[in-house]
Amino acid sequence: MNNFRRIPVGIVGASGYGGVQLVRLLMDHPQIELVYLGGESSAGKTFADLYPHIGSILNLSIEAVDTELITSRCEVVFLSLPNGLACDIAPKLLEKGCKVLDLSADYRFTDLTTYTTWYGTQRSDRLTAQKAVYGLPELYRDKIAESSLVGCPGCYPTASLLALAPLLKQGLVVPETAIIDAKSGTSGGGRQGKINLLLAEADNSLAAYNIACHRHTPEIEQICSDLARQEVRIQFTPHLIPMVRGILATVYANLRDPGLVRDDLRTIYTAFYRNSSWVKICDSGVYPQTKWACGSNTCYIGIEVDPRTSRVIVTSAIDNLIKGQAGQAIQCMNIMMGWDESLGLPKLGFYP
Amino acid sequence: MNNFRRIPVGIVGASGYGGVQLVRLLMDHPQIELVYLGGESSAGKTFADLYPHIGSILNLSIEAVDTELITSRCEVVFLSLPNGLACDIAPKLLEKGCKVLDLSADYRFTDLTTYTTWYGTQRSDRLTAQKAVYGLPELYRDKIAESSLVGCPGCYPTASLLALAPLLKQGLVVPETAIIDAKSGTSGGGRQGKINLLLAEADNSLAAYNIACHRHTPEIEQICSDLARQEVRIQFTPHLIPMVRGILATVYANLRDPGLVRDDLRTIYTAFYRNSSWVKICDSGVYPQTKWACGSNTCYIGIEVDPRTSRVIVTSAIDNLIKGQAGQAIQCMNIMMGWDESLGLPKLGFYP
Amino acid sequence: MNNFRRIPVGIVGASGYGGVQLVRLLMDHPQIELVYLGGESSAGKTFADLYPHIGSILNLSIEAVDTELITSRCEVVFLSLPNGLACDIAPKLLEKGCKVLDLSADYRFTDLTTYTTWYGTQRSDRLTAQKAVYGLPELYRDKIAESSLVGCPGCYPTASLLALAPLLKQGLVVPETAIIDAKSGTSGGGRQGKINLLLAEADNSLAAYNIACHRHTPEIEQICSDLARQEVRIQFTPHLIPMVRGILATVYANLRDPGLVRDDLRTIYTAFYRNSSWVKICDSGVYPQTKWACGSNTCYIGIEVDPRTSRVIVTSAIDNLIKGQAGQAIQCMNIMMGWDESLGLPKLGFYP
Amino acid sequence: MNNFRRIPVGIVGASGYGGVQLVRLLMDHPQIELVYLGGESSAGKTFADLYPHIGSILNLSIEAVDTELITSRCEVVFLSLPNGLACDIAPKLLEKGCKVLDLSADYRFTDLTTYTTWYGTQRSDRLTAQKAVYGLPELYRDKIAESSLVGCPGCYPTASLLALAPLLKQGLVVPETAIIDAKSGTSGGGRQGKINLLLAEADNSLAAYNIACHRHTPEIEQICSDLARQEVRIQFTPHLIPMVRGILATVYANLRDPGLVRDDLRTIYTAFYRNSSWVKICDSGVYPQTKWACGSNTCYIGIEVDPRTSRVIVTSAIDNLIKGQAGQAIQCMNIMMGWDESLGLPKLGFYP
Repeated sequence: MNNFRRIPVGIVGASGYGGVQLVRLLMDHPQIELVYLGGESSAGKTFADLYPHIGSILNLSIEAVDTELITSRCEVVFLSLPNGLACDIAPKLLEKGCKVLDLSADYRFTDLTTYTTWYGTQRSDRLTAQKAVYGLPELYRDKIAESSLVGCPGCYPTASLLALAPLLKQGLVVPETAIIDAKSGTSGGGRQGKINLLLAEADNSLAAYNIACHRHTPEIEQICSDLARQEVRIQFTPHLIPMVRGILATVYANLRDPGLVRDDLRTIYTAFYRNSSWVKICDSGVYPQTKWACGSNTCYIGIEVDPRTSRVIVTSAIDNLIKGQAGQAIQCMNIMMGWDESLGLPKLGFYP
Repeated sequence: MNNFRRIPVGIVGASGYGGVQLVRLLMDHPQIELVYLGGESSAGKTFADLYPHIGSILNLSIEAVDTELITSRCEVVFLSLPNGLACDIAPKLLEKGCKVLDLSADYRFTDLTTYTTWYGTQRSDRLTAQKAVYGLPELYRDKIAESSLVGCPGCYPTASLLALAPLLKQGLVVPETAIIDAKSGTSGGGRQGKINLLLAEADNSLAAYNIACHRHTPEIEQICSDLARQEVRIQFTPHLIPMVRGILATVYANLRDPGLVRDDLRTIYTAFYRNSSWVKICDSGVYPQTKWACGSNTCYIGIEVDPRTSRVIVTSAIDNLIKGQAGQAIQCMNIMMGWDESLGLPKLGFYP
Repeated sequence: MNNFRRIPVGIVGASGYGGVQLVRLLMDHPQIELVYLGGESSAGKTFADLYPHIGSILNLSIEAVDTELITSRCEVVFLSLPNGLACDIAPKLLEKGCKVLDLSADYRFTDLTTYTTWYGTQRSDRLTAQKAVYGLPELYRDKIAESSLVGCPGCYPTASLLALAPLLKQGLVVPETAIIDAKSGTSGGGRQGKINLLLAEADNSLAAYNIACHRHTPEIEQICSDLARQEVRIQFTPHLIPMVRGILATVYANLRDPGLVRDDLRTIYTAFYRNSSWVKICDSGVYPQTKWACGSNTCYIGIEVDPRTSRVIVTSAIDNLIKGQAGQAIQCMNIMMGWDESLGLPKLGFYP
Repeated sequence: MNNFRRIPVGIVGASGYGGVQLVRLLMDHPQIELVYLGGESSAGKTFADLYPHIGSILNLSIEAVDTELITSRCEVVFLSLPNGLACDIAPKLLEKGCKVLDLSADYRFTDLTTYTTWYGTQRSDRLTAQKAVYGLPELYRDKIAESSLVGCPGCYPTASLLALAPLLKQGLVVPETAIIDAKSGTSGGGRQGKINLLLAEADNSLAAYNIACHRHTPEIEQICSDLARQEVRIQFTPHLIPMVRGILATVYANLRDPGLVRDDLRTIYTAFYRNSSWVKICDSGVYPQTKWACGSNTCYIGIEVDPRTSRVIVTSAIDNLIKGQAGQAIQCMNIMMGWDESLGLPKLGFYP
């Protein structure tokens, strides 16, 4: 492994939780070299100013976001910015030949009408957006491999879609009965001083939020519709859980064939994900805990059928910051670069 | 308040979390005197042996469970025992004229066939069981007032039924579409040294358990069927949440009339619970946090309608140990004794 | 209890955690009526705007801070404001005959030089400050009874001083060897959107802060010096603990007489606090947990002697928002009004 | 990296938290192959029976503890057993040429009198014990390199000694003034169903335990005495913190030279640990959070001097399961094998 060249990689927006995870994982990635960290509000600071414990290990400063500079230095760029900013930067990076992985919502929608309806921003990069690929490798591996621009999925959609995909793709359930009751740790709310994210408020408490109007709804519906080859409306309810990391999606749907039993579905899921080393189907009667996934890029899936109601209940557990964000982006990069999909990603979580 | 006689009250099974809450709340109840604490494994110990911080304040020892002794001393008895034990004791207490409030599952089912199917124990007290009233005052206040034996509801059923009752009673939803995705703190698992309840296991983690087979399912279905005047099957999924106390039930159901909007339902709920001071309907767009309820006997209910799917989504928050257990039992006692329903119960929770 | 007059009470600064606890406890106090809530930034809002769960129970709005209005309506006023504001308001309230309990640092120091050194604000109310009494009833009960102005102690000083007082008062330890290693839940940091108080930052973590420079140091030293009748310098180190409420102070000091054993000290402490119902000395070998105190006004104290080092190690546990703040202020009010010291204060905590 | 031979490694006692961390870290270690997992109570089970999430990734079963079998298969053996068991097994493994790393207390004491006093077990392996080296690489790197038997330090001693070592080694403080106030997450209590480790008991609470009698005291004193070249008695107080992982040790000691300031000491510490990549000295005024260390083998050290009291206050943060247990054992193995000390160990923690 000596005479190979490490690929120069940059991150724009490295100061949030997603950015920190990207930095941490990329520092240990064997095929790349982290050469650029960009930020607006934090430009000029060292990483130690933001994160003292990392600063003593990583010797990079945050630089201004200058696309000339970025393209002169990087071959791959991760954009980890608030929604509505990547669409200004990505076209310039692509033009100069960079591969771009966007972690915001900007390139998740091929149809920008949906984006504008839910995110409220007009966009001028329609052609660029049409070229973007939705970065869920377990569903779109081949397209990602050929793409230069990946819109990485949201955290909730990742957990939800991995749980639902086999059911919809193979027509096993009635799509309009699908309900996703999702639960997330508070790191999903970002590193911002919001009252509702304070430990004194969020610890030992639990609530739903954005019922019937969360922005991840249309993202989930777009992919579900693609899988089901029909327009699908989903009920999606997010909850804030008193923990730092992890998402559990509990997915309900009515089976078309009430004769299907749990192990039939386990067999179908296992086959569906046979090439996806990051998805683990649990044994019969085992339901995943988010703690299992924390720190790893794995999605654990547990499957149950209720013969009394003819419903399937699927629970899926991920680390919202790894498989739900930074890890999945690196998985996509690996595919885009022709590397092993699991390169540089931790197999096992942090448990306990 | 001087020349009245305090009613002598006993607790059988005072050493668990439910028992401790009963002790704490009854110590401050203005109309009763706590005169007896009974237990099997803890007989002979003082309360300080079990709970040093309470022992210095309450000067009672745990005595053996002797029904002669209990009936000679107490007029009201709370049974806070594992399932299957109350049915041996309650008939003897009733015979001697005690009023009995059972916190286990033993007297929740008027039809003992259901009890035997789900709890696996044959029962010889069929006649006694038929006299028991289900202790959810918001639904069965009048029957409780006339009863000598109350089977207090489980914690999950309390949160679930208060959320569902107006919808089913008034025929607003399609019963078989009802899904209850419930989340509970770990105190619901009791004060036992189980590995999965350890802080190191349960903290910063989240999982579903007993999917499609939790014993609270038939209890919820019995009351839902009564409300809907038809047999109702419910989907019920419990989750373990990394917090000590609190339950949130997220309830989904399809509206029969898709034209109903959120505020229609808020009006209906407000009317339904107009005599129930322990139920609070949240303002439009406000969804309850379990922390609000912790330490109080209040159930907070938030209501949302999704016009895209014609579903109603109701979230209800309680303290599993108060409204879900000890507080509700005291509320029932107040009703049985002809006192104000809210006597001796904390109005406001512990927040933060 | 009908033909007595409830005393009208007001709170200035009711929107923080201390204010909310005051509101909650005063709502249930049998001798007072809450008639005024004041605030600057929140003036005009209802309490439901700030705290939806309380708003449905308490029907008061936040009014502007107008001392004319306050004195016309209230006989007792609690000031729960940031440091440096009470000293403007208190003199005007006192002048009109109100009794004032200040929860900030403004009236804790009789010597304003110390205040200015540590808090950096010049003060013009020197005469008023000299009349203030330090509101730790277990040490200054008689002075509080005669006072119209009480400077309520900080949360850390309350836990620290109750642990240290008998040792210093009776000359049992070498004062300059005293070290206080204190640990607090994050509610002590207030209800403000600070990054370091986020659940994602503070949960599952632990750190010291303000080592050798925390503002509670001179407050502790002032009272220790008073007790020891000599100037005392204390080592005080606060830590932030991943929990909402509670303070544990672990206090170390070298015994003057190495022959003293644990039970000697337990006897001395028990005698010292024999009139103080809110202080509980734990049995031999029992060390208090903060959970025991949470929700109550009790301070639990555990005592140990290490014969190998001739040190005494005392741990004291309080609820930082009750005994460390709102509960203690109410205890002081009870004393000022000539009522039972424990009136309206919960005896037992919230456990679990 | 192709034509080298991986060293075969075994773990006896792989089912606890320390064992799981060993498994996780060794699975990713580039120079070894995990070939044996042994256990008594869990013999015959697969790893998936114990840990479903790991079982799907690691395909090893737990085998009976047979020293013949172990020595025939392994060159390096980690013993992760309750105290008092390793001393039966280690001599047999050493005899056959294995290198042994013991994670229990059995080989931490060269003087078995101390061991017997504090652990209460007679030992027959006096000669073996004398050959053991204390596995704290930052202090005993050279001896570890030449040893076949390493007694790995306890979690508290690791954090405490790294904080104290420069002070004692260089005679900067009065040894008998040293006080260690240590705080640990509950995973330190092991994976056992103990009531006090339940989330419902330990969460949102805090207490000291084993004051003046914790078994890590003599271990710390043995090494402190070695460093100070005089017999040293230490005050050590452990606390249980409501978090899963991490230890913070807050160390107090009186400076011999009151003229020393913070940056003098930072310079001394930096020099002392200049060859120790796993120790990071924080910038002036920065105190470590345990969260920084969690998931990594790093010990972060913050230094403060209080000129008012002439004391130094040092806080050190580690992950109790990595630097305090499994990671440090692997660090020792690396040294024993002549590999880079940091091989296979994560540089950065899990933050947030």
